[in-house]
Amino acid sequence: MTAQLSKKGEAWSARFSEPVSDLVKRYTASVFFDKRLAEVDIQGSLAHAEMLAYQKIISADDYAAIQKGMSQIQGEIAGGKFEWLLDLEDVHLNIEKRLTELVGDAGKRLHTGRSRNDQVATDIRLYLRGSIDDISGLLRDLRLALLDLAEQHADTILPGFTHMQVAQPITFGHHVLAYIEMFGRDAERMLDCRKRVNRLPLGAAALAGTTFPIDRERVAKTLGFDDVCRNSLDAVSDRDFAIEFCAAAALVMTHVSRMSEELVIWMSPRIGFIDIADRFCTGSSIMPQKKNPDVPELARGKTGRVNGHLIALLTLMKGQPLAYNKDNQEDKEPLFDTVDTLTDTLRIFADMARGITVKPEAMRAAALQGYATATDLADYLVKKGLPFRDAHEAVAHAVRSCVDQACDLSDLSLEQLRVFSPLIDDDIFAVLTLEGSVAARDHIGGTAPRQVRLAIQHLRQQLG
Amino acid sequence: MTAQLSKKGEAWSARFSEPVSDLVKRYTASVFFDKRLAEVDIQGSLAHAEMLAYQKIISADDYAAIQKGMSQIQGEIAGGKFEWLLDLEDVHLNIEKRLTELVGDAGKRLHTGRSRNDQVATDIRLYLRGSIDDISGLLRDLRLALLDLAEQHADTILPGFTHMQVAQPITFGHHVLAYIEMFGRDAERMLDCRKRVNRLPLGAAALAGTTFPIDRERVAKTLGFDDVCRNSLDAVSDRDFAIEFCAAAALVMTHVSRMSEELVIWMSPRIGFIDIADRFCTGSSIMPQKKNPDVPELARGKTGRVNGHLIALLTLMKGQPLAYNKDNQEDKEPLFDTVDTLTDTLRIFADMARGITVKPEAMRAAALQGYATATDLADYLVKKGLPFRDAHEAVAHAVRSCVDQACDLSDLSLEQLRVFSPLIDDDIFAVLTLEGSVAARDHIGGTAPRQVRLAIQHLRQQLG
Amino acid sequence: MTAQLSKKGEAWSARFSEPVSDLVKRYTASVFFDKRLAEVDIQGSLAHAEMLAYQKIISADDYAAIQKGMSQIQGEIAGGKFEWLLDLEDVHLNIEKRLTELVGDAGKRLHTGRSRNDQVATDIRLYLRGSIDDISGLLRDLRLALLDLAEQHADTILPGFTHMQVAQPITFGHHVLAYIEMFGRDAERMLDCRKRVNRLPLGAAALAGTTFPIDRERVAKTLGFDDVCRNSLDAVSDRDFAIEFCAAAALVMTHVSRMSEELVIWMSPRIGFIDIADRFCTGSSIMPQKKNPDVPELARGKTGRVNGHLIALLTLMKGQPLAYNKDNQEDKEPLFDTVDTLTDTLRIFADMARGITVKPEAMRAAALQGYATATDLADYLVKKGLPFRDAHEAVAHAVRSCVDQACDLSDLSLEQLRVFSPLIDDDIFAVLTLEGSVAARDHIGGTAPRQVRLAIQHLRQQLG
Amino acid sequence: MTAQLSKKGEAWSARFSEPVSDLVKRYTASVFFDKRLAEVDIQGSLAHAEMLAYQKIISADDYAAIQKGMSQIQGEIAGGKFEWLLDLEDVHLNIEKRLTELVGDAGKRLHTGRSRNDQVATDIRLYLRGSIDDISGLLRDLRLALLDLAEQHADTILPGFTHMQVAQPITFGHHVLAYIEMFGRDAERMLDCRKRVNRLPLGAAALAGTTFPIDRERVAKTLGFDDVCRNSLDAVSDRDFAIEFCAAAALVMTHVSRMSEELVIWMSPRIGFIDIADRFCTGSSIMPQKKNPDVPELARGKTGRVNGHLIALLTLMKGQPLAYNKDNQEDKEPLFDTVDTLTDTLRIFADMARGITVKPEAMRAAALQGYATATDLADYLVKKGLPFRDAHEAVAHAVRSCVDQACDLSDLSLEQLRVFSPLIDDDIFAVLTLEGSVAARDHIGGTAPRQVRLAIQHLRQQLG
Repeated sequence: MTAQLSKKGEAWSARFSEPVSDLVKRYTASVFFDKRLAEVDIQGSLAHAEMLAYQKIISADDYAAIQKGMSQIQGEIAGGKFEWLLDLEDVHLNIEKRLTELVGDAGKRLHTGRSRNDQVATDIRLYLRGSIDDISGLLRDLRLALLDLAEQHADTILPGFTHMQVAQPITFGHHVLAYIEMFGRDAERMLDCRKRVNRLPLGAAALAGTTFPIDRERVAKTLGFDDVCRNSLDAVSDRDFAIEFCAAAALVMTHVSRMSEELVIWMSPRIGFIDIADRFCTGSSIMPQKKNPDVPELARGKTGRVNGHLIALLTLMKGQPLAYNKDNQEDKEPLFDTVDTLTDTLRIFADMARGITVKPEAMRAAALQGYATATDLADYLVKKGLPFRDAHEAVAHAVRSCVDQACDLSDLSLEQLRVFSPLIDDDIFAVLTLEGSVAARDHIGGTAPRQVRLAIQHLRQQLG
Repeated sequence: MTAQLSKKGEAWSARFSEPVSDLVKRYTASVFFDKRLAEVDIQGSLAHAEMLAYQKIISADDYAAIQKGMSQIQGEIAGGKFEWLLDLEDVHLNIEKRLTELVGDAGKRLHTGRSRNDQVATDIRLYLRGSIDDISGLLRDLRLALLDLAEQHADTILPGFTHMQVAQPITFGHHVLAYIEMFGRDAERMLDCRKRVNRLPLGAAALAGTTFPIDRERVAKTLGFDDVCRNSLDAVSDRDFAIEFCAAAALVMTHVSRMSEELVIWMSPRIGFIDIADRFCTGSSIMPQKKNPDVPELARGKTGRVNGHLIALLTLMKGQPLAYNKDNQEDKEPLFDTVDTLTDTLRIFADMARGITVKPEAMRAAALQGYATATDLADYLVKKGLPFRDAHEAVAHAVRSCVDQACDLSDLSLEQLRVFSPLIDDDIFAVLTLEGSVAARDHIGGTAPRQVRLAIQHLRQQLG
Repeated sequence: MTAQLSKKGEAWSARFSEPVSDLVKRYTASVFFDKRLAEVDIQGSLAHAEMLAYQKIISADDYAAIQKGMSQIQGEIAGGKFEWLLDLEDVHLNIEKRLTELVGDAGKRLHTGRSRNDQVATDIRLYLRGSIDDISGLLRDLRLALLDLAEQHADTILPGFTHMQVAQPITFGHHVLAYIEMFGRDAERMLDCRKRVNRLPLGAAALAGTTFPIDRERVAKTLGFDDVCRNSLDAVSDRDFAIEFCAAAALVMTHVSRMSEELVIWMSPRIGFIDIADRFCTGSSIMPQKKNPDVPELARGKTGRVNGHLIALLTLMKGQPLAYNKDNQEDKEPLFDTVDTLTDTLRIFADMARGITVKPEAMRAAALQGYATATDLADYLVKKGLPFRDAHEAVAHAVRSCVDQACDLSDLSLEQLRVFSPLIDDDIFAVLTLEGSVAARDHIGGTAPRQVRLAIQHLRQQLG
Repeated sequence: MTAQLSKKGEAWSARFSEPVSDLVKRYTASVFFDKRLAEVDIQGSLAHAEMLAYQKIISADDYAAIQKGMSQIQGEIAGGKFEWLLDLEDVHLNIEKRLTELVGDAGKRLHTGRSRNDQVATDIRLYLRGSIDDISGLLRDLRLALLDLAEQHADTILPGFTHMQVAQPITFGHHVLAYIEMFGRDAERMLDCRKRVNRLPLGAAALAGTTFPIDRERVAKTLGFDDVCRNSLDAVSDRDFAIEFCAAAALVMTHVSRMSEELVIWMSPRIGFIDIADRFCTGSSIMPQKKNPDVPELARGKTGRVNGHLIALLTLMKGQPLAYNKDNQEDKEPLFDTVDTLTDTLRIFADMARGITVKPEAMRAAALQGYATATDLADYLVKKGLPFRDAHEAVAHAVRSCVDQACDLSDLSLEQLRVFSPLIDDDIFAVLTLEGSVAARDHIGGTAPRQVRLAIQHLRQQLG
């Protein structure tokens, strides 16, 4: 019988009158991408077999044989000696067939009380749980690297932009903290997603459960799942967790894309706020002078890839009737590539954060341009009693006048300033400095260096 | 000065040398869709004003005037008498201008220490928090309606399908429970999203915080926020929460689309498993006999709308530099339409679930076709000692033979059955019945009526 | 009988035992968005009636009555006096019911040989054909406006960027021409799409054609269609044309987003390459000095909206069985909003192109930074006999040396330059000027002012 | 010098002070997916070299050396002996470095007057042009296979469905023709897209053109391009053609998904309209009786993949400033996978179309259910003088009565029928037959067998 296992269609051959065509084999096979599940597939099979033995559905000898066989298979895979056969369609049949070659009937008993439908659902969840844990670690690394950068520049002043126009002076540390917040929310979402990933589908069998007296909670415990999936039809057809993960991943990449956009702009020569170490840049095949910020650009481009995978999975599940349909095989490649993209990108960003050189003079020069302290002047007038709207209007007149004269607010004399409001006194000049402006925003979330340092301290405690 | 408020550009007019063109006004105005935020905008302004007064940034009299003015404005809006002006661009300036008309300088003081950037972010979060609470309630209603349906049909047998081919007999109650699980996960995700929605951006001002001695935690408490946003640049530019909500909404609609697909198929005459009450159907302008399941079809179509909004928001945020950019104004329409689509669809589905008539005979007839109990035969052989793979192969031969003779497995005599395995005895016939098959899957998540009833009981407790 | 027309469900009421619920009415009605099709719906009905009369399916008197009634309805709609009823579900039944009120039995005969399925498909195609023609005109306007800008700046030099790093000097006219090319391809795609829009579905009836002796080609001719749809099932269910249009629209908006990104960056004070007229900008509610490029920012944000609509329509059609399903009603809002977004955006961009002020000195200053002529030096060495790769390497050494000394290539003396290659002679200094560099790229598509002027001339001829 | 070529960064190494990190190398390298461009890369290089020689920019000897070297490289690649190095980043540098190893300085001269920016744009266009030609051929094969199926069943009657409810009888040939129309439009779109693919970017160099006296039209002619790209900045940054192709591909897959949905439903046992040959199906690892339509299910799932790639590319290009940015490297994988998915899917569908067995009896039985000829009865009454709306209402009453009695319209006696309208005579019974109904829809696009045969004939001529 074992010999027959070497042709695809083995698992159902007797019901069919002709073999699957070669074109179909290639079109429907998944082994070349799902073999990445081998480790978790074996882990799941061992937990299943342990339970079958405990419940006396298979014998202790069969279980021992399965353990032994699987151990050898793990070695073969680790050593690159395992022969993956397209004919055997997927990772599950490849491993089961090899097991049966190695241990005979015990191998044929492994599939008792389960189906590939619940088996693959279990595998993906085990795989994704591990990936989420890795990604959570990488998000932490990135936040720590950014925290170092923020701390070094808690006092470094640059212009804050809205609409790419100079808005108000801020500190670079404060700016970097914004990204740490974003990646912090990403970490929260990963944990929330993990809760729904970490439920065991095994035991759903094909779709309805099985007639064998299985103990699903035992298997869940062995594999570290928090709970079992409560409905067998849902268990085999649910791919919510993959979609939720890709949605969380799309937000990670959205944050990466925003940070990348800023890095690229900041490194552009007319801005020149930062430099990125040569090891993260490449040159040009034609222009000898070029040093290009390839890493952030490529990362920004990869946002599209992850958004695309999210749409791929949503489209896949749209309108699918219960329970399992072959469409679902298309869940793997988008998921795997999303995991890989996130993993590589976060790792390289944590590394690159440590290769950023800040240029405080360029930042300061830019902050002195564009009337960054106009709001401070308006606030000053409010504190002298003017309603905010009237103060705003008065300052707008002053700015307009400066634009016409091509000068800055702080270039105006007290006399000139008083044209716009008689409330202005010579205490105004301290207000109009960059340092004064920044230090004045001294409340939770504000840009004052004192607040930036408090936030860093708070985050360091949180990140442990 | 108040008079000037009636032209758009009021908030910054003095700095500009020409008015905004009419085309630009229409292109950039948001008042015709953001006026839906009026209620929460006023709520936010009142909490801000209360804090300003408490901190002595404005006087108690000013606060009282603002309260009085806002109260009148709320009445005008509720009564449909408030005049929304395109010239005033958005909901915020429309309300502030009216307030200033009503209460003078106090109105001009309201905007002290805030910007529209943090104001609108606060408004959207308040709005979305309320919408999530509504949607959570509707998800509960739908699950309760489905629970009733499942309970009525805990014993009704129909064929379970995989690949739209008959797989194994299941109960209709079990099938309905699968959707209850899906909508249950949706409810979990809504709650997880709510945590990240319910943080206060107010106090971030334009992007850097403000020079006034504000108390953000006081405002958060007044408005029922769990926390304040910890970084002002992030606070004004973050739209993660809207994207996360739309992603959760896309999953709700994905589940709706799957259920709709099944309802439509089940109501197709060759299947005929259910009927949907006339009040949820429409006819044809040309074909007098038609009764069409419009509601599930339209709901299935609306999946696209929500997937589209998710992509709209992700595309919107991709590559945006900090802090606020005008692009962000495009966040509202996709979000509002997603809320509306979910609200309407969930409401109508809860209603429609009570208008479904199940046709048990059609279901039973279908279950008797397609060798639904073949797995039971294989399991039977395993219990007699055959390894599962060999049992599977033996039954495949039996099915093949039945296909050739156009008969069912249960039509074979004991003698005919024993051709495929000598292990078969006359206790097999009980195994091959639909009732026997269903009852045998008696573990957590299995289709046995006993398990279905336990699951229903469990869910009723959970839903309170 | 006419009276009954006032309740929804009129078109099929006799077959139903209960009226449609109010919630369902609102959920399934389309009249509040499809009434924009009224004009084309009447146009289609008149062409259908004319054919019915010509073929003697209805009488000449009936046709005359229909013409008279429709003329009155057109007047009512134009005058804002037509009463749209939710109860009548859609634009088609609203108009037909009013027609029957006005002209009696002739109105009831109008629907002979057609269904709403082919009627609405015809309406959308007529509507979209008109929209494509409008958009084509607007694309032309925008290209003409950009041509004027390019012509004014055929000699204005700025740095060309790749990776936001200075690459080589280019002319601003050349840069603007790049966008004219993009919008030119958009116009081509609109025309290609129009071919597939402009085919007549009418005559497909519900899905199978009709038993009346209709003449579809006559109707096609009356309505200006190029051809008739060749298969009735396809005719009523095809929405390819809407998807193809949205895909073409997504490319238009992608180009708009790229141009917007550049306008926003160029107007940022550290770059300062351009200014945009005040009438296209707005200010800030808090920062008195701000002048924000709202129009390009908002347009960039609207890219998401159109990408989203494209996904909405693709998701909508995915997996839909033939022929018509109610899902298809969801085609309209994404399509209408895409048309509106494109129309508004292109109009405002053509206008804004004329409000751009170029600042040549800032551009020139930027071009002198960043070793923009390094490639010219390498090309010079190649012309003296060095293989390109070796020349590239030699210049890279020279640039590295300049970076270390913080000077430009043209700051090096002949002696210093000859360190990197003895092939360099004093004719090199002309090569290293911006004007020399730009003028040297004198082939089709190159940045030389001569080529820019030739391209402008070529485009002016093409645009007529 | 050649030796240096073996480290990445060779093309720009002299300007950099540290090598690219290993992580960055892996992150930014494209050679493992862009090596599929090797053949077209060489083709493009040879055409470029031929022009350089013709224009005397390189010598005839250099050109001969390049030809010889490239010929050897082609052999090495074909023979699997070419060593692809990650260190050399991409297909272009790998081939150029090998060429220089083989032929020395001539190899270093190849890159004269071009950049990787225009080189890769040329490669992708050559690759995509070939892929479009392949796909056009496969679309033709599929349409021919479907034409054979349609022809065999020009008279086979099945119920036409709208809303999955029985609408009117149609022929299976007519139904199949609907898909032939869809795939026909796909072929049109591929050709339209090809026009915009088939323009030569080479000569744009990095972004601005080159200082060498190149002849772009000569290269275009050599490579079979219809035109040259008219603006160098646009030429290097344009990826419209890839997006347009993916949009056209998404429509192909949308059609495939619709056909797949129908095949899966038709093969479901309660419908049973068709069977698909065993070689296109697979079984179950647990349920011995299963025969699953894997191919259409998987193809339906792959719709998501292609929609996702479309979004990936649109997201990628959104907001990218001119000219080339590294983001663009992300264009390749989505494009390649889209080409592969289409190619494989179309090939297997053409094959599978020939493995479909139609079951006319099941189709006929279904057509007799559901009052499929009710419209014919209404049309009959119209021909007797009743306005269509009144006829529709009369028939609705008749159907309602049949539903109550659980009988068909043709089961009613003449007397019973006349209750609903005295206009009914005994010629009605011919009208109510399936054959009568189908034959009566005898106009272009109608379902009458005569029309189906005419359409087939027309298509055969068109497909040649």
